[in-house]
Order: sequence, then C-alpha cells, then structure tokens
Amino acid sequence: MTATNLVLPSGTSGPPILSRLALSAAAVEGGVMSNRELFAWLAERQREQQQHVERVPFAALRGWRFDQRTGDLRHDSGRFFSVRGLAVQSDFGPVRSWAQPIILQPEIGILGIALRDFDGVPHLLMQAKSEPGNVNGVQLSPTVQATKSNYTRVHGGSAVPYLDLFRRPRPGKVVADVLQSEQGAWFLHKRNRNMIVEVGPEAVAGEDFAWLTLGQVNLLLRHDNLVNMDARTVLSCLPDWRTVDGDLGGDAGWSLYPDREIRTWITRRRAEHEVTVTPTPLAQTRGWLRTQHAVTHCNGLYFDVVAVDVSSRGREVPAWSQPLLEQRGTGVAALFVKRIDGIPHALLRARAEPGFLDVVELGPTVQCVPENYEHLPEEDRPPYLSEALARRAGARYDVVLSEEGGRFRHSQSHYMIIETEREFPAVSDEFRWLTARQLDEMLRYSHHLNVQARTLVAALRTL
Amino acid sequence: MTATNLVLPSGTSGPPILSRLALSAAAVEGGVMSNRELFAWLAERQREQQQHVERVPFAALRGWRFDQRTGDLRHDSGRFFSVRGLAVQSDFGPVRSWAQPIILQPEIGILGIALRDFDGVPHLLMQAKSEPGNVNGVQLSPTVQATKSNYTRVHGGSAVPYLDLFRRPRPGKVVADVLQSEQGAWFLHKRNRNMIVEVGPEAVAGEDFAWLTLGQVNLLLRHDNLVNMDARTVLSCLPDWRTVDGDLGGDAGWSLYPDREIRTWITRRRAEHEVTVTPTPLAQTRGWLRTQHAVTHCNGLYFDVVAVDVSSRGREVPAWSQPLLEQRGTGVAALFVKRIDGIPHALLRARAEPGFLDVVELGPTVQCVPENYEHLPEEDRPPYLSEALARRAGARYDVVLSEEGGRFRHSQSHYMIIETEREFPAVSDEFRWLTARQLDEMLRYSHHLNVQARTLVAALRTL
Repeated sequence: MTATNLVLPSGTSGPPILSRLALSAAAVEGGVMSNRELFAWLAERQREQQQHVERVPFAALRGWRFDQRTGDLRHDSGRFFSVRGLAVQSDFGPVRSWAQPIILQPEIGILGIALRDFDGVPHLLMQAKSEPGNVNGVQLSPTVQATKSNYTRVHGGSAVPYLDLFRRPRPGKVVADVLQSEQGAWFLHKRNRNMIVEVGPEAVAGEDFAWLTLGQVNLLLRHDNLVNMDARTVLSCLPDWRTVDGDLGGDAGWSLYPDREIRTWITRRRAEHEVTVTPTPLAQTRGWLRTQHAVTHCNGLYFDVVAVDVSSRGREVPAWSQPLLEQRGTGVAALFVKRIDGIPHALLRARAEPGFLDVVELGPTVQCVPENYEHLPEEDRPPYLSEALARRAGARYDVVLSEEGGRFRHSQSHYMIIETEREFPAVSDEFRWLTARQLDEMLRYSHHLNVQARTLVAALRTL
Repeated sequence: MTATNLVLPSGTSGPPILSRLALSAAAVEGGVMSNRELFAWLAERQREQQQHVERVPFAALRGWRFDQRTGDLRHDSGRFFSVRGLAVQSDFGPVRSWAQPIILQPEIGILGIALRDFDGVPHLLMQAKSEPGNVNGVQLSPTVQATKSNYTRVHGGSAVPYLDLFRRPRPGKVVADVLQSEQGAWFLHKRNRNMIVEVGPEAVAGEDFAWLTLGQVNLLLRHDNLVNMDARTVLSCLPDWRTVDGDLGGDAGWSLYPDREIRTWITRRRAEHEVTVTPTPLAQTRGWLRTQHAVTHCNGLYFDVVAVDVSSRGREVPAWSQPLLEQRGTGVAALFVKRIDGIPHALLRARAEPGFLDVVELGPTVQCVPENYEHLPEEDRPPYLSEALARRAGARYDVVLSEEGGRFRHSQSHYMIIETEREFPAVSDEFRWLTARQLDEMLRYSHHLNVQARTLVAALRTL
C-alpha cells in the first residue's frame, strides 16, 4: 500500500473542510492579495501574455492536415485531438437524426485547483492563462490544466508546474477527484478529472499564479469572461460550503423529490431513450461543407471548424497553429430557481447530448443558441427559452462566459440564474426541481451534471 | 407532470423500507408459501418447463448466420444480439493486447422484482424460468426479464407478464432503479435496469411465479444453481436491510477508508489506466478459429461460441435455435472479508474489463477461471487466487452459481466468501477494503460494482 492510500479519518485535523471553505467564501477582500492587487495582476498578466491570434486557411496549418481518405482533421503526430464526423440517431425530440463534426480527444486530463491555508483561511491557487479562443486573452484558470500526455509521460523540460501536487497528493488531502464530461454537443465522450487538493507551504505562487480566497474567485465569477470553463467546472466540484449555514439542509435536508426518485428518474431517462452515435469520416458528414477557411453547416447554423495562427507578443513567428471550433451566435444557459416550502430548488433538464458517455446528464433549465431554432415552429423551440429571455432583466445572475479557449473560438453564452414563482413544468418528464444538497451529492459522482450546469452551480454559490 | 412523477415524501406510509425488508429477511419459513411447498413448486415447474437443448453445428441455426463479409454472427432480423470481434489494448497487466469475440446487445432491458406485503411482511414475486444455457433447467428469476424491444414496442400477444408494474410504477413505490453492467469480459457496454418496485394486491402470482420472503430467497441463494444471475443482481440493489441492526453502522458508520477516498480511488483507476477497445470483424479475430461447431481460442482457453437447438417437452419440433457463449472451465469468484476495528469489511479489486462502459468497476477479491492462468508464471496469476483455493474448506459461503442461461451455456463459478485475519494487500493500489454501507452506497449509482461482485453482495447478506 503506498503512502497516499493509507488514509484514516484520524489523519485529518483542523476544522472540517466545509467550515473552512465557508470562511474562505466570506473573505471577499482576499488575504494574500487585495482585490486592487488582483485586478492589477490580471491586467499585467494580460499584457505579458498577449497573444496575436489570426484566422488562417486550413492550408496554412502547420502539423495539421485533412486525411486524404476520410477527410478527418488530425495532427501529424496523432496527438492533441482530431475532428471527425458523427452520425446521430435518437428516438425523441423534434430532430431525430443528423450528422455533425465532432472533436475526439480520448485522453483523460487533469483540471486541478490547489488549496492552501493562509492565516487559517484556505486560498485557491489560480492561474492567469491566455488561450487562443478567448475573446479577451487571459482568463482565470485552475492551478493545472494537463492532458494525460503531460502527466503520465516524461517530457524533458516541459513539465507542467504544480502537476505533482495532483499526481502525488498528500494522504487525506484530496478534497475532490471526479471524472466530469465536457460539451456533449462538441466532444465525443470527453471527460476530465476535476481535482481539488490541499497543499502546504511548499506550494509557492509563480508569476502567472495567485492565491485567492473563494470569496475573490466568486467575485470574479460575476464578471464577464474572467473565470474560464475549466476553473468553473472544478469549482462546482468543491463540496457546498453553504450547507453549514443550515439553510440548505444537512444530509437529511428536505427536497421536493427524495434522492431515490431523482436517481431513478435519471435511470429511466437513460434507459428509455436511445441515442446511437457512430463516428464517420468527416468528408461524409451530410449537410456540412468544407471550404478553404472553414467546415460549416450548409445553413450557416450551429458552429464552424476554423484554423488559427497564434503568435506571442513581440514575435513575428507564429508560436503554433491549430484548429478551433467556433459556435455560431451567443448561447443561453439559464437556470430557474425557486423556493419550495422555503428551501431553494433549481430546475434541471435531463439532456441527451450525442457526446455523453452515458446517454443523459442533467443540464440547465434552458441551454441552446437561440438562432439555431429560429427556423423551427414555436413548439419545437426549447421549453422556457422565451420565458428566460423575457425575464432576463430581473435575473439574479447574468454573466457572459466563454467555453474553453483551447478548443473553442469566441464561443460565449449568457449564463443566467432566474428566480421564478411559477409552477414548472406543466407536463414534462424531462425536468425536475433539485435542491443544492442534491446537486452537491450528484457532483460527487461522475456524469450527472453537464458542464453548463456545473458552471451554473458554481454561479449559484456566488449569490 | 405525470402521476408517477409527483412523489412527495408525505406520500409514503408505514414503517420504512429497511425495517420491512429486515422483517422479510427474518421470515425464513416463508409466509404465502412454506419451504416445503416452495421446493415442491420448483420441482413441478422443472418438470413442466423441461427443455431439450442440443448442441448443433452453426449451419443448423435457423435465423442466424455469419455475415459473408465480416464473419459476424447475427440474427436475420437484426434483433436479439450479435457476436463480433474486439481488439483490446491496455497499458497495464501481464497481457496488454489481445483480440476476442464479444457479444453486442445495445438495448437496455429491465430486470425487475415486484414486492408486495402479506400480513405486513414484504414478499418478492419470483419466477421459475428455464433457460437453454442452464445446467439444470429451471432457476429462480426476477419477476420480469425484458429486453427493450419487449417493453417499448407493441407486440400483439407477446406481452411480458407484470411488465406494466415496472413501466408504470405507482408514485413513491420504486425502491430501486439503477443501470448496472453485465459481464465485461463477454459483453460490450451491456447494461440493464435493475428495478425493485412495491406493488399492491392487483399483482397475483401466475403458475410460474411465487411470492417468497427475502428469508426464503436467501435460503435458496445457499443452494447451487437455484437463483439465476438476473435475480442475484437485482437483489444486490435492494437497500441493505442489515443496516438497521446497528452492526453495519448508519450513514456515518466508520470505515477503513472514508467514502471520499474510495470515490477518488475509483476516479484515479479510471483516469490513469487506458483501455482501448475497437469492435472488429469476427472473422479477423487474431487467435480465434471458426469450425463448423464452435468459434474457439487456438489454445482451447477462455470460452467458445456455440449453437444450440431448444425444444420443449413432448414436442419434436425445436422451439428455436440460438448461439450461446460457453466458458471453458469453472470460474472462481471469491470475496475476502474481515472485521477491522470490529466493523465487517470486504476486499474489492478495481477491475478493467474490456466491455465496461467506464473503464473500471469494482470486482471480487479474486475473479478468474484458474485454467486460463496455468500456462503463466506464478507472478502473472491473479493475486490471492492460491490463497482463496487453499482456504476454500473454511469458506463462509461456497456455492456454484451460473451466469445468465439465455446467453451463456453451462458457465458456472464457485462463488465464495472467505473470512481472513491477514493483512491485505501488501503493495497494490488495485485493492481496497469497503464496508457493507459503502457497498450499499455504491450500488445506488451505476457502474461501480461488477456483476460478480453484485452476486457476492447478495450472498454476503445471506450470512
């Protein structure tokens, strides 16, 4: 048995993690770094890491090419990711059969945030990181974003900083380690480890890193495009510190539906609805065209696959080039919340996205790009979309956030939390009201909440 | 919202399910049917349902054929299941790359047991059912074993008895409904819904059915080949009624490893070990030969794919013919148990079987067919196999049970529970001690315990 495995409860010390996280969430003025220093540091990192990103034709990609036989877009080394086609068939919904490009990236990476106490208050080691797909360069990222190639093989000199904190955590210091999916509409079976690990004084912040309280990170989550997708999903996997204040209830907290009912509902949605996906050659993706500059849908909907050159500040030679997926239009991801018998509940929708490993995960009440539905009759548009747009002015949370800038270019959504008094849903088995305690429980197990819902859970905890 | 969805805790009544299950487990003499009547009924069903099952050459199969191009074995209708090839690559273990035949059956079926109170004691509606692969004809089966074709499409006249009890359960009456895997060595991504549903007096036992107490079913579980695999896996998904007596601890019950450590261990095993599986044409399965009578491994190991004709008692014309998979040798599935600080723990192994949807599930301490390892050096044989065989005489449970007779012919294993005082494991991250409460918790979520481990959980609860 290795040292990391022999973990007894007696090995833990100090106040329990929930109370300590509650302390950190309350420390909105920061500890190690004031908020003024934080914004100054972000601005400086913005200048230091400035990238010049330029759309280029596919022919200008270095190291990437379309396979002559299949048309699949791949890197010559076989690494990173590839873009193939996907044929999708389902037995429900207005559109039951379609084809689309999809990203394949079978490796499981690590998204990890390190926690360290300063004066008894846990701080998160956050990274200022620019990605070519970001609209604004640098965003706040987890301590580590590493692919499996990074973390299991020896790359002389290209070690990922802080990786060992997650590869070899100290006994009893793993707060969370759970596999979670990423965008099921764009990735096939992609998932990453979401890790939070407590570390000691040996972890020191480098110049692209800062120790922030949870209160500071929550503050940044209320700004447009400052906290990246990877950071948001890891934050959602923190145990919910708000359960200590009683309002959200303990393990026995009341909920409209008992936990068993929620689990059996998910089982039923997974079992009764069939979604068959078959990877196909990208060249044979019906309804999609490849030009010199993009792979696009023939109606100009959904997304494009494009190519970019990335160069660093002050250098003429591009640092690298790569494909990115670019969403058409701005998305909407809205979560309706309501007090039921005094207990806050959120309305989740069981969604079958083609790239999910296990057919169905819970998503926000509304998740779509409205433009994609403009050609469809009202009854085929997503439920509650018009309601969400109409109530936007009174939303408790309304922030533009972007998807992962290493894969997605300028792909943003309005993330909204909307308080409602209405009775939903009228007649659908696709929706259920869950409490924060139930969401927290689901997040301990893989593949229950999709990445958009996880962002909204992180957002909910800032309110 | 449909009637089944509006389920409030206030809708439940009577003593909680755990106490009622404990009552049922204690009723070892039965209620509706005495044990003498039970064995007489089983013997009579055995006579009534007698099947004549005969090995035939593949050419004698009606409705099944090998695809001319791929060699895959399929039914002409495209229904039931198919046998294809699978190429497997992993990055650990003594054998890291191999090819094998595999069964594909993408539909999710229902395995369901109905519970009904008689004089305040819950009884299980069990079915006496013969399957062509059983060594002994009839075994005790769940109330319902239905494929999705059965349960979502209208088949005039071929309705599955009691199916509506599971398709449209009464509000608040679903005790469990969870997707669970089946043999990951033989099926690709196969899983079924495991359901337990409480029903009322409208459910009446037909002649192939009997209302048995949990105590009676547990008694039968101690007999060789009497409770079939489908019944065993559903039984394991019952909430553990033994938690009410205090010995196993409540939600806060002590365990050697905290729950969080167990979950993060499973995540790590899933993330750090890569198993890549690629379906291939059966005809191109390296190391496997097809004769007129079987698809076999060139060394005579593992299993064969064979064909059988099935005819019912007193009828000359075979009722149907079908392929079956036949394990070579008798398997061993052994669970080591030990009291640690007075609390019973069981030693589970994180297993990567090629057909698992999510890479790794927990299996018994030892799970193998010993003959398959006789050609390998001692250090490449499964850990603790020789220990398990040496301690068999003192086993607390040692029963021969067979795998599902609708797919597997004469495929049996010695299921054993072995009490130990020794310290295990010495040096491996593949093993962990879990309490009954932790196993119970894992069984509420899909894909944590494999089908052999689930049988042993059901067996453990009979002790």
